[in-house]
Amino acid sequence: MALIVQKFGGTSVGNPDRIKNVARRVAKYRAKGDQVVVVVSAMSGVTDNLIKMAKEIMPIPNEREMDMLLATGEQTTIALTAIALHALDIPATSMTGAQAGIVTDDVHTKAKIKNISPKLVHEMLDAGNVVIVAGFQGQTIAGQITTLGRGGSDLTAIALAAALKADLCQIYTDVDGVYTADPRIVKTARHLPEISYDEMLELAGLGAKVMQSRSVEFAKKFGVVFEVRSSLNDNPGTIVKEETLSMEGVVIRGVSLDKNQAKVTLVAVPDQPGVAGHIFKAIADANINVDMIVQNISHKADKPSTDISFTVDKPELLKTQKVIEALKTKIGFSDVIADEKIGKLSIVGVGMRSHPGVAAKMFETLATEGVNIGMISTSEIKISVIIDLAKGEQAMCAVHEAFLGK
Amino acid sequence: MALIVQKFGGTSVGNPDRIKNVARRVAKYRAKGDQVVVVVSAMSGVTDNLIKMAKEIMPIPNEREMDMLLATGEQTTIALTAIALHALDIPATSMTGAQAGIVTDDVHTKAKIKNISPKLVHEMLDAGNVVIVAGFQGQTIAGQITTLGRGGSDLTAIALAAALKADLCQIYTDVDGVYTADPRIVKTARHLPEISYDEMLELAGLGAKVMQSRSVEFAKKFGVVFEVRSSLNDNPGTIVKEETLSMEGVVIRGVSLDKNQAKVTLVAVPDQPGVAGHIFKAIADANINVDMIVQNISHKADKPSTDISFTVDKPELLKTQKVIEALKTKIGFSDVIADEKIGKLSIVGVGMRSHPGVAAKMFETLATEGVNIGMISTSEIKISVIIDLAKGEQAMCAVHEAFLGK
Repeated sequence: MALIVQKFGGTSVGNPDRIKNVARRVAKYRAKGDQVVVVVSAMSGVTDNLIKMAKEIMPIPNEREMDMLLATGEQTTIALTAIALHALDIPATSMTGAQAGIVTDDVHTKAKIKNISPKLVHEMLDAGNVVIVAGFQGQTIAGQITTLGRGGSDLTAIALAAALKADLCQIYTDVDGVYTADPRIVKTARHLPEISYDEMLELAGLGAKVMQSRSVEFAKKFGVVFEVRSSLNDNPGTIVKEETLSMEGVVIRGVSLDKNQAKVTLVAVPDQPGVAGHIFKAIADANINVDMIVQNISHKADKPSTDISFTVDKPELLKTQKVIEALKTKIGFSDVIADEKIGKLSIVGVGMRSHPGVAAKMFETLATEGVNIGMISTSEIKISVIIDLAKGEQAMCAVHEAFLGK
Repeated sequence: MALIVQKFGGTSVGNPDRIKNVARRVAKYRAKGDQVVVVVSAMSGVTDNLIKMAKEIMPIPNEREMDMLLATGEQTTIALTAIALHALDIPATSMTGAQAGIVTDDVHTKAKIKNISPKLVHEMLDAGNVVIVAGFQGQTIAGQITTLGRGGSDLTAIALAAALKADLCQIYTDVDGVYTADPRIVKTARHLPEISYDEMLELAGLGAKVMQSRSVEFAKKFGVVFEVRSSLNDNPGTIVKEETLSMEGVVIRGVSLDKNQAKVTLVAVPDQPGVAGHIFKAIADANINVDMIVQNISHKADKPSTDISFTVDKPELLKTQKVIEALKTKIGFSDVIADEKIGKLSIVGVGMRSHPGVAAKMFETLATEGVNIGMISTSEIKISVIIDLAKGEQAMCAVHEAFLGK
């Protein structure tokens, strides 16, 4: 008897009929005698609608209240999913994040899981139930409802799989797993049967959309092998696990394009020690994640100053600008420029480590396409560039062709 | 400084604009220096939509899961209401029923409040917040989410007012308070500035729609004086309190018509001791409330049998029929007849006690209108009759005219 954690996203539970499909899939595993824990997201559209109502009332609503509000989305789905299993004569019980023992810190809308005490989950499983847990949410020690931020339901599933020592963790989504590039953009993209945590991590952090990086980080940390697969068919998915030797034979695993970033540039920042620290401390204090940072020194001898650029998630842009504006008199930069029309194009592969010249080949390919590079950032197994959003897809196809075209 | 509990129903919080109106009203009381606890229902339509989805999946969904599902409705409203107060620069915090310390028994979908430990509510009030509590819901000792059934948000407000020893409890609704009859049906209906708990109780139990009887019972038990008033204007409402001497001068306080009842008749039930007990025990075990019961003996000498009729809330009819059908072989009645096309017409007034002939006058009035009486039930301050639904409103107007006409 295996213990399986299955996670279904918002599209898979988008309406009562789809929830019935999810129940039928769960029933198949259960018929084999497996214990099943199901983690579900809010029905697609529900979270956006709640956010829309809140913003109609106040443009930047309080984050504790947003958690109170958004947690209802997943709570709705767990109840409906339990009912759908009952309709198939399968004993099932729903649990909120709090009831499943998911304890988080108190950083509302972006809480981190501190620990999981799945006593009740075990009890209910042992009593013969399928247990349906609300993804994306938890509770602080003080009993406040929190949410885990974007991709939080994946994180719930992987963290539960770790805490329950599950035999298998399946992340159901609307694609068959991970591809060398988004098949909707790059027609020649190929399905990957397996991928290392590190590669998945870089892809996840880069807007490959399949999963958020924190879930993959968590899986890597706790050695949770998981499968990303489609809820629409029975095709095998992509297994995400520790790197193997054979993975290094391939230079580039995939190409991704992140359209969800915005670039902020502070113009003519006084070139003094401590200024950058001051800026990014203020941003971190507001719980905004900064991705890339670039600083260019300008050599005006009389009044040394510099431009500092960085990227944040688009939804954080307004909040970021408020934080920055508040620093203006104190720091004394001349202007703030925000640019939402950017894309971050990245290539990822553990094989990159042992193959020199990968960056050069990428930059040449972009030059041939007439694509200007705005910012560059590299890691051991990744190269990212910020380019004009309008040329993003064209650049992505060209780079995919250069590295992965048969 | 007074402590006020204000309850707003689903229509009053039906969309973000109306929620802003609620916040403005709360702000007015707060500007006087009062502490305010706000109890809100689900936005109108939300609960019905959740029920609809659940029934699409399974006609009679599990009640624990229905509570899990429906509790999201109020949770959505509390968060949006808190945000609306923040938009007016008023510190406010939302609380689920569980967080507000509302402990119930474990009869899902119809839980009873066992006790309230409003420690956190007091703390948050003392810290200068408006506290917004989700109506209609609570939590069992074991941490299961429960709902209080129809009219549960009123109950939450009144129970909180009692537990907090509030100075004032206001139930905001879409009418100006209690009338001698529903003004939408009876054009000559008059507004009542005050009414006794007992009269309100009878009216509430009779479909007068303003409030459910359990809330009034609770208020009576704990001596919570409350005001029913409109959220659409500033007109004075109806104060509900202990009976006063002057109230007895009026024979009839009001006339009501309940269209939400259904009648079930068991035909040819064996006339043996214990049969009725058996039937109504089974119905009670299924947590169905029975209202009126009538039994007529038929004098067939060879095989004595009787017809038993009773009424239940219409939404309980399907469940009731299932319970009854399951008893058929055991008890041996010949048939079950369900009738949803009935109305319960009632007159209520503490003055009835000292004025004989009230029943006779009511029956004569109905006879003059050609309305047949199906069942009769009386209490010290109330007379109810079951009549044909199609003649309900006509009968109501005639009875109102007879007792309360100018």
